[in-house]
Amino acid sequence: MRDVGTLLEALPYIREFHHKTVVIKYGGAAMEDPELREEFARDVVLLKYVGLSPIVVHGGGPDITAYMERLGLPVEFVAGLRVSDADTVEVAKMVLVGKVNKEIVMRINRHGQPAVGLCGDDGSLFRVSRRSGPGGEDIGFVGRIERVNVDVLNHVSSDYIPVIASVGADRDGHSYNVNADEAAGAVARALGAYKMIFLTDVPGWLADPQDASTLIGQASAEQVTQALPTLEGGMRPKLQACLDAIQGGVNSAHIIDGRLPHSLLLELFTDAGIGTKVGVAS
Amino acid sequence: MRDVGTLLEALPYIREFHHKTVVIKYGGAAMEDPELREEFARDVVLLKYVGLSPIVVHGGGPDITAYMERLGLPVEFVAGLRVSDADTVEVAKMVLVGKVNKEIVMRINRHGQPAVGLCGDDGSLFRVSRRSGPGGEDIGFVGRIERVNVDVLNHVSSDYIPVIASVGADRDGHSYNVNADEAAGAVARALGAYKMIFLTDVPGWLADPQDASTLIGQASAEQVTQALPTLEGGMRPKLQACLDAIQGGVNSAHIIDGRLPHSLLLELFTDAGIGTKVGVAS
Amino acid sequence: MRDVGTLLEALPYIREFHHKTVVIKYGGAAMEDPELREEFARDVVLLKYVGLSPIVVHGGGPDITAYMERLGLPVEFVAGLRVSDADTVEVAKMVLVGKVNKEIVMRINRHGQPAVGLCGDDGSLFRVSRRSGPGGEDIGFVGRIERVNVDVLNHVSSDYIPVIASVGADRDGHSYNVNADEAAGAVARALGAYKMIFLTDVPGWLADPQDASTLIGQASAEQVTQALPTLEGGMRPKLQACLDAIQGGVNSAHIIDGRLPHSLLLELFTDAGIGTKVGVAS
Amino acid sequence: MRDVGTLLEALPYIREFHHKTVVIKYGGAAMEDPELREEFARDVVLLKYVGLSPIVVHGGGPDITAYMERLGLPVEFVAGLRVSDADTVEVAKMVLVGKVNKEIVMRINRHGQPAVGLCGDDGSLFRVSRRSGPGGEDIGFVGRIERVNVDVLNHVSSDYIPVIASVGADRDGHSYNVNADEAAGAVARALGAYKMIFLTDVPGWLADPQDASTLIGQASAEQVTQALPTLEGGMRPKLQACLDAIQGGVNSAHIIDGRLPHSLLLELFTDAGIGTKVGVAS
Amino acid sequence: MRDVGTLLEALPYIREFHHKTVVIKYGGAAMEDPELREEFARDVVLLKYVGLSPIVVHGGGPDITAYMERLGLPVEFVAGLRVSDADTVEVAKMVLVGKVNKEIVMRINRHGQPAVGLCGDDGSLFRVSRRSGPGGEDIGFVGRIERVNVDVLNHVSSDYIPVIASVGADRDGHSYNVNADEAAGAVARALGAYKMIFLTDVPGWLADPQDASTLIGQASAEQVTQALPTLEGGMRPKLQACLDAIQGGVNSAHIIDGRLPHSLLLELFTDAGIGTKVGVAS
Amino acid sequence: MRDVGTLLEALPYIREFHHKTVVIKYGGAAMEDPELREEFARDVVLLKYVGLSPIVVHGGGPDITAYMERLGLPVEFVAGLRVSDADTVEVAKMVLVGKVNKEIVMRINRHGQPAVGLCGDDGSLFRVSRRSGPGGEDIGFVGRIERVNVDVLNHVSSDYIPVIASVGADRDGHSYNVNADEAAGAVARALGAYKMIFLTDVPGWLADPQDASTLIGQASAEQVTQALPTLEGGMRPKLQACLDAIQGGVNSAHIIDGRLPHSLLLELFTDAGIGTKVGVAS
Repeated sequence: MRDVGTLLEALPYIREFHHKTVVIKYGGAAMEDPELREEFARDVVLLKYVGLSPIVVHGGGPDITAYMERLGLPVEFVAGLRVSDADTVEVAKMVLVGKVNKEIVMRINRHGQPAVGLCGDDGSLFRVSRRSGPGGEDIGFVGRIERVNVDVLNHVSSDYIPVIASVGADRDGHSYNVNADEAAGAVARALGAYKMIFLTDVPGWLADPQDASTLIGQASAEQVTQALPTLEGGMRPKLQACLDAIQGGVNSAHIIDGRLPHSLLLELFTDAGIGTKVGVAS
Repeated sequence: MRDVGTLLEALPYIREFHHKTVVIKYGGAAMEDPELREEFARDVVLLKYVGLSPIVVHGGGPDITAYMERLGLPVEFVAGLRVSDADTVEVAKMVLVGKVNKEIVMRINRHGQPAVGLCGDDGSLFRVSRRSGPGGEDIGFVGRIERVNVDVLNHVSSDYIPVIASVGADRDGHSYNVNADEAAGAVARALGAYKMIFLTDVPGWLADPQDASTLIGQASAEQVTQALPTLEGGMRPKLQACLDAIQGGVNSAHIIDGRLPHSLLLELFTDAGIGTKVGVAS
Repeated sequence: MRDVGTLLEALPYIREFHHKTVVIKYGGAAMEDPELREEFARDVVLLKYVGLSPIVVHGGGPDITAYMERLGLPVEFVAGLRVSDADTVEVAKMVLVGKVNKEIVMRINRHGQPAVGLCGDDGSLFRVSRRSGPGGEDIGFVGRIERVNVDVLNHVSSDYIPVIASVGADRDGHSYNVNADEAAGAVARALGAYKMIFLTDVPGWLADPQDASTLIGQASAEQVTQALPTLEGGMRPKLQACLDAIQGGVNSAHIIDGRLPHSLLLELFTDAGIGTKVGVAS
Repeated sequence: MRDVGTLLEALPYIREFHHKTVVIKYGGAAMEDPELREEFARDVVLLKYVGLSPIVVHGGGPDITAYMERLGLPVEFVAGLRVSDADTVEVAKMVLVGKVNKEIVMRINRHGQPAVGLCGDDGSLFRVSRRSGPGGEDIGFVGRIERVNVDVLNHVSSDYIPVIASVGADRDGHSYNVNADEAAGAVARALGAYKMIFLTDVPGWLADPQDASTLIGQASAEQVTQALPTLEGGMRPKLQACLDAIQGGVNSAHIIDGRLPHSLLLELFTDAGIGTKVGVAS
Repeated sequence: MRDVGTLLEALPYIREFHHKTVVIKYGGAAMEDPELREEFARDVVLLKYVGLSPIVVHGGGPDITAYMERLGLPVEFVAGLRVSDADTVEVAKMVLVGKVNKEIVMRINRHGQPAVGLCGDDGSLFRVSRRSGPGGEDIGFVGRIERVNVDVLNHVSSDYIPVIASVGADRDGHSYNVNADEAAGAVARALGAYKMIFLTDVPGWLADPQDASTLIGQASAEQVTQALPTLEGGMRPKLQACLDAIQGGVNSAHIIDGRLPHSLLLELFTDAGIGTKVGVAS
Repeated sequence: MRDVGTLLEALPYIREFHHKTVVIKYGGAAMEDPELREEFARDVVLLKYVGLSPIVVHGGGPDITAYMERLGLPVEFVAGLRVSDADTVEVAKMVLVGKVNKEIVMRINRHGQPAVGLCGDDGSLFRVSRRSGPGGEDIGFVGRIERVNVDVLNHVSSDYIPVIASVGADRDGHSYNVNADEAAGAVARALGAYKMIFLTDVPGWLADPQDASTLIGQASAEQVTQALPTLEGGMRPKLQACLDAIQGGVNSAHIIDGRLPHSLLLELFTDAGIGTKVGVAS
């Protein structure tokens, strides 16, 4: 190859993002597909090398369900939240923290920047309180993040890439499942991140969910606020999380297509960007 | 209470151990018994407050076996090492890292000093290579620690109490079970720890294993070297680990009775000490 | 000894006091009795080891009087203040700074933490102005502290235990006797100390000074304010100093019985505490 | 553009060069052509952003000659060295330091990283002694660098990109012209640079200078040593400078074609590299 | 010599100026006369040694005019400002930055403290905009300083004596002549300097310009404000610069006679001082 | 005054001594005469301001004797050493530490640099052992310095001027008189001081003690070694201390006439210097 154009197109973005924190909600195909996940690890390492401070927050849906089925535990969801008795939470936490998290950590290590895995318990990163389902029903040990203790994040991220599994405990030490989108948003707000990016399995926010050509490339907080009541499905909580992030001081929030190779770099380092950006048009 | 004698008896030891690293292999009754484990967490926090740098290394036997049985996986040991196919290692790692480790971390947090859990993958702490059974037989993914990367330990321990789960991966990213006694010894040697302490379910090294009154309070490296070939059962690997530690630059290695409340403090802060000390008599 | 209970009872206090400054007014039997003064030095060293920042302020009554008598100088007191001509102040200062202070410094050194002696002249620690007796009469070179220069205290206390003799000079360089209770209080207020502790020869504030069973264990600033006009003898200035300390930002002020072995540790590290605490009940 | 391949091809090189010093001898077409010089400034800024420490050393031939002609001064060269009386040196220094250097500094500033121009006088960067021509003849104030004072370079490069004009003075304060290739080599050796790169107007070292297809991509120090006596023209001093650099502790030295857009990035961040590398094959 | 009186007379001033910034506008005889300029360099070095932070700002009139005449360029002034086409500015900048500045730097180096030369381009020290002549006429590339970037000054002055040539560029990279008095004033205000000192070829502000005995030793800002409209010649802009400095936060501004040997030291370190001080009488 | 010649004559010396430690043995007329002692304090402050690190070591003969006489204690000397029973040492220490030392500290404070008084007990500065008289006779608590703990000196001298009283204690805490010349020498050697200076009441080392015109301005270590056996009186121990200092790594040692106003500055900052210098001629 004799072409360094991308490096140069990337330069203004590298300049803009220098020493800025980017919180990445990692999930979906980019976490499942063997090739995409190697690329993801490599991309995150590149971000660190060119001077950003990337922080990865992840959930771990399919692996948890698989183990629950092997253990004969019932799998039930209410409004996208996993109904969780104590046994379910224990299994979910083991899978998230002991399997999914460490696989991500090792892949990032292997690409040349050391990572450290954390969950809400480490350094008391998250304090969580019990939440109920959307209709007020009891859904067990499903938590809402009350407080993010940024000390441990700042300490770890000065030398390592933090990889955070979205589980946490309440004041009494009971563990809870925490929705990973919410966890990522809480981390981004607590750190005053420059950007937060949701890696999803859709192209972004589509005006017509059936038609990828109706992608809304950029939306203001006001536009999202107005649209929210009319939305359904998984896009609603993601846009809500974007809105919360913006209103909590994050500069911009992005919903991008993690199925696209190097979607993270395309979003960050190209003029066009990809997916949907919530925030002030630049 | 109107007696501060212990504080004063402890003073010379506090002075001696100030800013010294103590690696504690945590396991057995002190990890199983609800009361003992609260006391252990409180003791570790106290060590940090009075100026030591405690590092906890743990295994997690019974919990692993319980999950394996729930999953219908065969449980097999050769010479104290768990025979481990890939599925076994995955379950063991999830239980160790995602359950046992975080329970210890939370208990220490709750007693007032923040802890951070690590496994061999975090910051590439351990690099592991495959080992075979004592007779050379294949026992699967059971590893020997080749290299300890102290960077992540030094970084974390400057502000947090590191709690280390004894699993690690090889260069190719395959995970392995690692014997926790060996892991603790490797960490102590790599850090040039001042002391390493094995919390066990026996009073120490007994000349006659059936007779607690035959406790050997202190033994030199030479004495242990001579006795090793004649020993059987769990004491042999522990004394071997003590010997390795001493020969690797650790000042003294201790086998103490974790069933005794506050055994850690008794060992560290009383004139008599408890259990067996390997090293130069003081 | 096989009991580490005190260490554990002390833990919450060690936690509470970590990196906090405690100003100790040292005097009375604890300074006269050979055994008590060794214990005092050891206790102060222990405080430093477990993370507190102790600062010792002392007077030196009996030694001064003895030298004055040897020199044939008149010894006279008005309302507890030593009437001081220039010759008296010179002798008092020599005894305090050159004898009493260095004996305390050496005892603390010997127990394992280095101390540095200071008087009001060192680093311009105190600036003093002339005061008159309670009835307005001239009592000579008896001073009131106008300003505490905390620079030298902060510099010295980062590495050493400061031991302060209560003498100082005015803008013209004339030396003055300063009441040690007042000096301790001024230091505590200037540093925003967490606690100040008066080591005395009484059990504390007694409702009936003749009856030790009438000890007032805890009193609010309001209670002390109301009681002050009704009090007589040495307790009045001590309670006044406690009140000044509290109102000047010190968290709590204590009058304890220095005749009791390890009274300092008992006050700081046991649930019951000892003596009288002025401040909000805990 | 929707392609981030170059960023990813660059990753292993970014990793390799992280926090490494690269000394760039800047000259020829890359300094004359308006478009190329903008690209050069942008490339240098990019190097800084991705974690390298670039140091630019430049001469300024054509501008100097132009001013000398305007001033009616004779222009004479011996073996590539400008014969320099005191008047010539003064003009050359003014042009180099006051015109060429500041133009480079401003262009780098404008692309987003602050630069500071230095010459051999600033912070006593160079101490120079008089040299004679190749036949021993007097060529006036032409200097050889005796000592590089790296203090000022280390101080400036911690926050700024240093841009160095190749003039210096002797102990008596007389100014001298210094060959820029030699100056770059002296700086690279003094700093123990990782790489030094000569931007030239040829494709590299050609086995047959008339035939660009005979480019020698990689040569060991031994090969260069053997070939040197057989070489003529401008390539000889450049290869000599490469050799000196390698033997002085620089990892590799490169002769590349500055007429090629982004030749610097192509050399540093692509697998193929460009031009001739002197050093161990990688 | 057996007299150290001056050292002692200087002591209160050394104390007053410790760690204070003094901006010196350097020019006139002190820059032309061979002996005076050596003394100036030695004096500046002395200031640095006794704890001040001196910053030198200079112009370079006669040298510029000489080169312009050699190049056959027209020399024209309007109200003390050099009418400057692009060619004039280029020559002026080369002479100032590449000749005058480096001569000052080398002389300071030689007297024992390292100096670094800067112009408005280095670290984007000055941003300049075009100004017109006093009557609004176009005088070419003559600039007014809009912004001083103190980062590069603070960085350089921590280890080196900054010597600043008064040229700068606008946003588009065009270079401009900047009046050195104005540049010195802008630097002093931006740094919140303690003092600024103009070295001139007159004894100071004279009530009667023909009569040196009418020197005004001290004047308040109000007095200068009132007098300004009545003044003519070079004193007017200097007093205006003094006034601007005072009103911009500089403690005092001085106009002194640079023809007097060691005028700088006499002003700073003797009770009488010399020349005219604008500011509050001390 | 309109003469800054001394400042300039001082410059090369200020440069030479920058950040160098100078240990000054203070005593004799310079400590007794009211005017000389103010000048001494001012001179020491000046040294600190111009970048030296002065350390003052003092004895206190006449004051001690006066107090001993007032107390009716016998005053006896053997070979210049005060015969000292426990009572004598206590009085001597009180006078030195509590009177003489603090007077020096206050005078230095008043002239504008803060000083801190130390004795051998503070921070365990000196460890002393018992010595006997020159004929082996018991002279009581007269000590020889075995070890200087420079930690406390380095800590204090970073922000304060240390003023050291020459008393110290042995391992058992018994106090001893220490000869101040010896103490100054021990401090200078332990710190690797650049210079040590003895302020005395003679012009220096005189070839003929009766004839001031026979002053030996400079002597090598060899010359002093040869002359020592032939010398008598107070000059012998001083020259011995000079010799010990030189052989212990101090650059030069000086015996100067403290009766001369500003003798310290004359020695340090003038070309001629004063008194006798032991060391290599410069």
